[in-house]
Amino acid sequence: MPHISIPNGLPGIRGLMNYRPETAAPINELVDVLLRGEHTLSPGERELVATYVSSANDCRYCHSIHGAIAARHLDDEQLVADVKCDVEHANVSEKMKALLAIAGKVAVGGKQVTTDDIARARANGATDLEIHDTVLIAAVFCMCNRYVDGLATWAPDDPDFYRQRAAIVAEHGYIMAVVTPSPNK
Amino acid sequence: MPHISIPNGLPGIRGLMNYRPETAAPINELVDVLLRGEHTLSPGERELVATYVSSANDCRYCHSIHGAIAARHLDDEQLVADVKCDVEHANVSEKMKALLAIAGKVAVGGKQVTTDDIARARANGATDLEIHDTVLIAAVFCMCNRYVDGLATWAPDDPDFYRQRAAIVAEHGYIMAVVTPSPNK
Repeated sequence: MPHISIPNGLPGIRGLMNYRPETAAPINELVDVLLRGEHTLSPGERELVATYVSSANDCRYCHSIHGAIAARHLDDEQLVADVKCDVEHANVSEKMKALLAIAGKVAVGGKQVTTDDIARARANGATDLEIHDTVLIAAVFCMCNRYVDGLATWAPDDPDFYRQRAAIVAEHGYIMAVVTPSPNK
Repeated sequence: MPHISIPNGLPGIRGLMNYRPETAAPINELVDVLLRGEHTLSPGERELVATYVSSANDCRYCHSIHGAIAARHLDDEQLVADVKCDVEHANVSEKMKALLAIAGKVAVGGKQVTTDDIARARANGATDLEIHDTVLIAAVFCMCNRYVDGLATWAPDDPDFYRQRAAIVAEHGYIMAVVTPSPNK
Protein backbone atom coordinates (compact mmCIF):
# COMPACT_ATOMS: atom_id res chain seq x y z
CA MET A 1 0.00 0.00 0.00
CA PRO A 2 1.42 3.42 -0.89
CA HIS A 3 2.71 5.53 2.02
CA ILE A 4 0.43 8.42 0.96
CA SER A 5 -3.09 8.51 -0.39
CA ILE A 6 -3.11 8.28 -4.22
CA PRO A 7 -6.66 9.31 -5.20
CA ASN A 8 -7.13 7.30 -8.40
CA GLY A 9 -5.13 4.17 -7.60
CA LEU A 10 -2.80 4.50 -10.60
CA PRO A 11 0.41 2.42 -10.31
CA GLY A 12 4.06 3.48 -10.03
CA ILE A 13 5.11 6.99 -10.96
CA ARG A 14 1.82 7.55 -12.79
CA GLY A 15 -0.14 7.78 -9.52
CA LEU A 16 2.46 10.15 -8.06
CA MET A 17 2.42 12.33 -11.16
CA ASN A 18 -1.35 12.53 -10.94
CA TYR A 19 -1.06 13.48 -7.26
CA ARG A 20 1.52 16.26 -7.90
CA PRO A 21 1.25 17.59 -11.47
CA GLU A 22 3.46 20.60 -10.65
CA THR A 23 6.48 18.32 -10.28
CA ALA A 24 5.31 15.82 -12.92
CA ALA A 25 5.58 18.42 -15.71
CA PRO A 26 9.34 19.13 -15.44
CA ILE A 27 10.13 15.43 -14.77
CA ASN A 28 8.32 14.43 -17.98
CA GLU A 29 9.98 17.26 -19.89
CA LEU A 30 13.41 16.12 -18.66
CA VAL A 31 12.73 12.49 -19.60
CA ASP A 32 11.38 13.47 -23.03
CA VAL A 33 14.53 15.50 -23.81
CA LEU A 34 16.87 12.76 -22.59
CA LEU A 35 15.13 9.66 -23.96
CA ARG A 36 13.38 10.97 -27.07
CA GLY A 37 15.22 14.11 -28.21
CA GLU A 38 17.33 14.07 -31.37
CA HIS A 39 20.45 12.07 -30.57
CA THR A 40 23.25 9.82 -31.83
CA LEU A 41 21.95 7.11 -29.46
CA SER A 42 18.61 5.70 -30.57
CA PRO A 43 15.54 5.97 -28.29
CA GLY A 44 15.78 2.19 -27.80
CA GLU A 45 19.42 2.44 -26.67
CA ARG A 46 18.61 5.24 -24.23
CA GLU A 47 15.64 3.28 -22.86
CA LEU A 48 18.08 0.39 -22.28
CA VAL A 49 20.12 2.69 -20.00
CA ALA A 50 16.95 3.60 -18.07
CA THR A 51 15.95 -0.07 -17.85
CA TYR A 52 19.37 -1.27 -16.76
CA VAL A 53 19.67 1.29 -13.95
CA SER A 54 16.10 0.62 -12.77
CA SER A 55 16.86 -3.09 -12.73
CA ALA A 56 20.10 -2.49 -10.77
CA ASN A 57 18.01 -0.48 -8.28
CA ASP A 58 15.42 -3.29 -8.17
CA CYS A 59 12.54 -0.93 -9.03
CA ARG A 60 9.97 -3.28 -10.55
CA TYR A 61 7.60 -0.65 -11.95
CA CYS A 62 10.40 1.33 -13.63
CA HIS A 63 12.41 -1.57 -15.07
CA SER A 64 9.19 -3.20 -16.33
CA ILE A 65 7.78 -0.14 -18.08
CA HIS A 66 11.09 1.13 -19.49
CA GLY A 67 12.05 -2.41 -20.47
CA ALA A 68 8.78 -2.66 -22.36
CA ILE A 69 9.38 0.71 -24.04
CA ALA A 70 12.95 -0.34 -24.99
CA ALA A 71 11.62 -3.62 -26.39
CA ARG A 72 8.99 -1.72 -28.38
CA HIS A 73 11.60 0.60 -29.92
CA LEU A 74 14.08 -2.23 -30.58
CA ASP A 75 11.42 -4.83 -31.44
CA ASP A 76 13.25 -7.32 -29.21
CA GLU A 77 12.02 -8.39 -25.77
CA GLN A 78 14.78 -11.00 -25.37
CA LEU A 79 17.51 -8.39 -25.80
CA VAL A 80 16.03 -6.33 -22.96
CA ALA A 81 15.91 -9.42 -20.74
CA ASP A 82 19.55 -10.17 -21.65
CA VAL A 83 20.68 -6.62 -20.80
CA LYS A 84 18.98 -6.80 -17.39
CA CYS A 85 20.64 -10.16 -16.72
CA ASP A 86 24.18 -9.88 -18.17
CA VAL A 87 25.18 -6.78 -20.15
CA GLU A 88 28.63 -7.99 -21.15
CA HIS A 89 27.16 -10.96 -23.03
CA ALA A 90 24.09 -9.20 -24.45
CA ASN A 91 23.79 -8.48 -28.17
CA VAL A 92 24.51 -4.74 -27.97
CA SER A 93 27.43 -2.76 -29.42
CA GLU A 94 30.73 -2.45 -27.54
CA LYS A 95 29.95 1.26 -27.14
CA MET A 96 26.61 0.42 -25.48
CA LYS A 97 28.30 -2.10 -23.17
CA ALA A 98 30.75 0.60 -22.07
CA LEU A 99 27.96 3.16 -21.57
CA LEU A 100 25.82 0.67 -19.65
CA ALA A 101 28.81 -0.11 -17.43
CA ILE A 102 29.07 3.61 -16.64
CA ALA A 103 25.33 3.73 -15.92
CA GLY A 104 25.68 0.78 -13.54
CA LYS A 105 28.44 2.62 -11.66
CA VAL A 106 26.27 5.75 -11.40
CA ALA A 107 23.52 3.61 -9.83
CA VAL A 108 25.93 2.75 -7.01
CA GLY A 109 27.26 6.30 -6.70
CA GLY A 110 28.69 9.06 -8.89
CA LYS A 111 32.24 8.64 -7.62
CA GLN A 112 32.25 4.99 -8.75
CA VAL A 113 32.77 6.15 -12.36
CA THR A 114 36.50 5.97 -13.13
CA THR A 115 38.69 7.44 -15.86
CA ASP A 116 39.11 3.86 -17.11
CA ASP A 117 35.31 3.54 -17.51
CA ILE A 118 35.32 6.77 -19.55
CA ALA A 119 38.37 5.68 -21.58
CA ARG A 120 36.64 2.39 -22.48
CA ALA A 121 33.58 4.30 -23.72
CA ARG A 122 35.72 6.69 -25.78
CA ALA A 123 37.78 3.82 -27.23
CA ASN A 124 34.50 2.40 -28.49
CA GLY A 125 33.46 5.68 -30.10
CA ALA A 126 31.39 7.37 -27.38
CA THR A 127 31.22 11.17 -27.60
CA ASP A 128 31.13 13.68 -24.74
CA LEU A 129 27.39 14.13 -25.23
CA GLU A 130 26.76 10.38 -25.18
CA ILE A 131 28.78 10.05 -21.96
CA HIS A 132 27.04 13.09 -20.43
CA ASP A 133 23.58 11.87 -21.31
CA THR A 134 24.29 8.32 -20.15
CA VAL A 135 25.34 9.65 -16.73
CA LEU A 136 22.33 11.96 -16.55
CA ILE A 137 19.85 9.27 -17.68
CA ALA A 138 21.29 6.94 -15.03
CA ALA A 139 21.03 9.70 -12.41
CA VAL A 140 17.45 10.55 -13.45
CA PHE A 141 16.41 6.93 -13.01
CA CYS A 142 18.10 6.77 -9.60
CA MET A 143 15.68 9.63 -8.82
CA CYS A 144 12.61 7.97 -10.37
CA ASN A 145 13.34 4.59 -8.74
CA ARG A 146 13.65 6.20 -5.28
CA TYR A 147 10.51 8.29 -5.86
CA VAL A 148 8.45 5.25 -6.88
CA ASP A 149 9.73 2.89 -4.16
CA GLY A 150 10.25 5.51 -1.44
CA LEU A 151 6.49 6.09 -1.46
CA ALA A 152 5.74 2.35 -1.79
CA THR A 153 3.64 2.61 -4.95
CA TRP A 154 2.24 -0.58 -6.46
CA ALA A 155 3.26 -2.26 -9.73
CA PRO A 156 1.01 -4.42 -11.93
CA ASP A 157 2.06 -8.06 -12.41
CA ASP A 158 0.70 -8.54 -15.94
CA PRO A 159 3.40 -8.00 -18.64
CA ASP A 160 0.63 -6.91 -21.01
CA PHE A 161 -0.03 -3.86 -18.86
CA TYR A 162 3.52 -2.68 -19.56
CA ARG A 163 3.38 -3.66 -23.27
CA GLN A 164 0.18 -1.68 -23.80
CA ARG A 165 1.42 1.35 -21.88
CA ALA A 166 4.78 1.14 -23.72
CA ALA A 167 3.01 1.37 -27.09
CA ILE A 168 1.38 4.64 -25.99
CA VAL A 169 4.59 6.16 -24.59
CA ALA A 170 6.68 5.05 -27.59
CA GLU A 171 4.22 6.71 -29.94
CA HIS A 172 3.30 9.88 -28.03
CA GLY A 173 6.19 10.54 -25.61
CA TYR A 174 6.19 11.09 -21.86
CA ILE A 175 4.51 14.49 -21.64
CA MET A 176 1.66 13.49 -23.97
CA ALA A 177 1.24 10.03 -22.41
CA VAL A 178 0.06 11.71 -19.20
CA VAL A 179 -3.11 12.82 -20.93
CA THR A 180 -3.42 9.74 -23.18
CA PRO A 181 -5.66 7.12 -21.58
CA SER A 182 -4.43 3.53 -21.37
CA PRO A 183 -6.70 0.58 -22.15
CA ASN A 184 -6.28 -0.59 -18.52
CA LYS A 185 -5.33 2.25 -16.16
CA MET B 1 39.34 17.00 -13.93
CA PRO B 2 35.82 16.53 -15.34
CA HIS B 3 35.25 13.42 -17.47
CA ILE B 4 33.94 15.60 -20.33
CA SER B 5 35.04 18.97 -21.65
CA ILE B 6 33.17 21.80 -19.86
CA PRO B 7 33.85 24.85 -22.06
CA ASN B 8 33.78 27.63 -19.45
CA GLY B 9 35.27 25.85 -16.44
CA LEU B 10 32.24 26.49 -14.19
CA PRO B 11 32.11 24.21 -11.10
CA GLY B 12 29.64 21.51 -10.09
CA ILE B 13 26.25 21.32 -11.73
CA ARG B 14 26.63 24.86 -13.10
CA GLY B 15 29.20 23.75 -15.66
CA LEU B 16 27.02 20.80 -16.69
CA MET B 17 23.94 23.02 -17.01
CA ASN B 18 25.90 25.38 -19.20
CA TYR B 19 27.03 22.42 -21.34
CA ARG B 20 23.47 21.03 -21.77
CA PRO B 21 20.85 23.79 -21.37
CA GLU B 22 18.09 21.54 -22.78
CA THR B 23 18.24 19.35 -19.67
CA ALA B 24 19.16 22.19 -17.31
CA ALA B 25 15.82 23.95 -17.90
CA PRO B 26 13.51 21.18 -16.57
CA ILE B 27 15.93 20.35 -13.72
CA ASN B 28 15.88 23.97 -12.56
CA GLU B 29 12.10 24.14 -12.94
CA LEU B 30 11.71 20.97 -10.85
CA VAL B 31 14.02 22.29 -8.12
CA ASP B 32 12.29 25.69 -8.08
CA VAL B 33 8.86 24.06 -7.60
CA LEU B 34 10.11 21.71 -4.89
CA LEU B 35 12.39 24.04 -2.91
CA ARG B 36 10.82 27.44 -3.46
CA GLY B 37 7.14 26.91 -4.33
CA GLU B 38 4.40 27.82 -1.85
CA HIS B 39 4.55 25.21 0.90
CA THR B 40 3.94 24.38 4.56
CA LEU B 41 7.67 23.62 4.87
CA SER B 42 9.79 26.76 4.64
CA PRO B 43 12.40 27.13 1.87
CA GLY B 44 15.07 26.79 4.58
CA GLU B 45 13.59 23.50 5.82
CA ARG B 46 13.40 22.12 2.27
CA GLU B 47 17.00 23.18 1.59
CA LEU B 48 17.96 21.25 4.74
CA VAL B 49 16.54 18.09 3.13
CA ALA B 50 18.59 18.75 -0.03
CA THR B 51 21.70 19.44 2.07
CA TYR B 52 21.28 16.38 4.29
CA VAL B 53 20.88 13.99 1.34
CA SER B 54 23.81 15.56 -0.53
CA SER B 55 25.94 15.20 2.59
CA ALA B 56 24.85 11.54 2.99
CA ASN B 57 25.89 11.00 -0.65
CA ASP B 58 29.20 12.81 0.04
CA CYS B 59 28.67 15.26 -2.84
CA ARG B 60 30.80 18.23 -1.79
CA TYR B 61 29.55 20.72 -4.37
CA CYS B 62 25.87 19.99 -3.64
CA HIS B 63 26.01 19.84 0.15
CA SER B 64 28.15 23.01 0.22
CA ILE B 65 25.91 25.11 -2.03
CA HIS B 66 22.59 23.86 -0.64
CA GLY B 67 23.96 24.10 2.90
CA ALA B 68 24.86 27.72 2.18
CA ILE B 69 21.39 28.40 0.74
CA ALA B 70 19.74 26.73 3.76
CA ALA B 71 21.91 28.83 6.11
CA ARG B 72 20.99 31.98 4.17
CA HIS B 73 17.24 31.24 4.48
CA LEU B 74 17.50 30.19 8.15
CA ASP B 75 20.20 32.75 9.07
CA ASP B 76 22.07 29.98 10.89
CA GLU B 77 25.24 28.32 9.57
CA GLN B 78 25.75 26.31 12.77
CA LEU B 79 22.33 24.65 12.43
CA VAL B 80 23.21 23.45 8.94
CA ALA B 81 26.50 22.03 10.20
CA ASP B 82 24.63 20.29 13.04
CA VAL B 83 22.07 18.73 10.64
CA LYS B 84 24.88 17.37 8.44
CA CYS B 85 26.62 15.91 11.49
CA ASP B 86 23.81 14.60 13.76
CA VAL B 87 20.17 15.24 12.83
CA GLU B 88 18.64 13.72 15.95
CA HIS B 89 20.45 16.23 18.19
CA ALA B 90 20.14 19.25 15.89
CA ASN B 91 17.86 22.16 16.80
CA VAL B 92 15.07 21.35 14.32
CA SER B 93 11.45 20.36 14.99
CA GLU B 94 10.49 16.76 15.69
CA LYS B 95 8.61 16.81 12.37
CA MET B 96 11.78 17.86 10.54
CA LYS B 97 13.80 15.16 12.31
CA ALA B 98 11.29 12.56 11.11
CA LEU B 99 11.28 13.95 7.54
CA LEU B 100 15.09 14.10 7.45
CA ALA B 101 15.20 10.47 8.64
CA ILE B 102 12.97 9.54 5.68
CA ALA B 103 15.24 11.52 3.33
CA GLY B 104 18.26 9.67 4.69
CA LYS B 105 16.56 6.34 3.95
CA VAL B 106 15.74 7.46 0.39
CA ALA B 107 19.43 8.25 -0.13
CA VAL B 108 20.21 4.59 0.56
CA GLY B 109 17.28 3.29 -1.51
CA GLY B 110 13.55 3.81 -1.86
CA LYS B 111 12.64 0.51 -0.24
CA GLN B 112 14.48 1.50 2.94
CA VAL B 113 11.56 3.78 3.91
CA THR B 114 9.32 1.84 6.33
CA THR B 115 5.76 2.33 7.54
CA ASP B 116 7.31 3.13 10.95
CA ASP B 117 9.29 6.00 9.37
CA ILE B 118 6.07 7.33 7.85
CA ALA B 119 4.13 6.82 11.12
CA ARG B 120 6.76 8.81 13.03
CA ALA B 121 6.45 11.70 10.56
CA ARG B 122 2.65 11.66 10.78
CA ALA B 123 2.74 11.49 14.61
CA ASN B 124 4.75 14.71 14.48
CA GLY B 125 2.26 16.42 12.20
CA ALA B 126 3.63 15.73 8.71
CA THR B 127 1.04 15.84 5.91
CA ASP B 128 0.89 13.64 2.79
CA LEU B 129 2.29 16.51 0.71
CA GLU B 130 5.17 17.08 3.14
CA ILE B 131 6.02 13.37 3.04
CA HIS B 132 5.68 13.24 -0.76
CA ASP B 133 7.85 16.30 -1.28
CA THR B 134 10.48 15.12 1.21
CA VAL B 135 10.82 11.83 -0.68
CA LEU B 136 10.93 13.61 -4.04
CA ILE B 137 13.45 16.25 -2.86
CA ALA B 138 15.65 13.43 -1.51
CA ALA B 139 15.30 11.54 -4.81
CA VAL B 140 16.05 14.67 -6.87
CA PHE B 141 19.28 15.22 -4.94
CA CYS B 142 20.27 11.58 -5.39
CA MET B 143 20.03 12.48 -9.08
CA CYS B 144 21.94 15.78 -8.81
CA ASN B 145 24.70 14.26 -6.63
CA ARG B 146 25.24 11.42 -9.13
CA TYR B 147 25.17 13.85 -12.07
CA VAL B 148 27.78 16.13 -10.46
CA ASP B 149 30.11 13.38 -9.19
CA GLY B 150 29.49 10.90 -12.03
CA LEU B 151 31.07 13.40 -14.42
CA ALA B 152 33.81 14.35 -11.91
CA THR B 153 33.09 18.07 -11.85
CA TRP B 154 35.18 20.27 -9.56
CA ALA B 155 34.06 22.07 -6.40
CA PRO B 156 35.56 25.31 -5.02
CA ASP B 157 37.21 25.13 -1.58
CA ASP B 158 36.39 28.67 -0.44
CA PRO B 159 33.21 28.83 1.73
CA ASP B 160 32.69 32.41 0.51
CA PHE B 161 32.12 31.11 -3.01
CA TYR B 162 29.08 29.19 -1.75
CA ARG B 163 27.88 32.07 0.48
CA GLN B 164 27.95 34.51 -2.42
CA ARG B 165 26.26 32.12 -4.81
CA ALA B 166 23.69 31.23 -2.12
CA ALA B 167 22.72 34.90 -1.77
CA ILE B 168 21.92 35.04 -5.51
CA VAL B 169 19.95 31.77 -5.55
CA ALA B 170 18.04 32.62 -2.35
CA GLU B 171 16.97 35.93 -3.86
CA HIS B 172 16.32 34.99 -7.49
CA GLY B 173 15.61 31.23 -7.50
CA TYR B 174 17.21 28.45 -9.52
CA ILE B 175 15.90 29.26 -13.00
CA MET B 176 16.85 32.93 -12.75
CA ALA B 177 20.21 32.24 -11.06
CA VAL B 178 21.38 30.57 -14.29
CA VAL B 179 21.38 33.94 -16.04
CA THR B 180 22.47 35.96 -12.97
CA PRO B 181 26.25 36.39 -12.88
CA SER B 182 28.09 35.55 -9.66
CA PRO B 183 30.85 37.83 -8.33
CA ASN B 184 33.30 34.93 -8.82
CA LYS B 185 32.15 32.45 -11.43
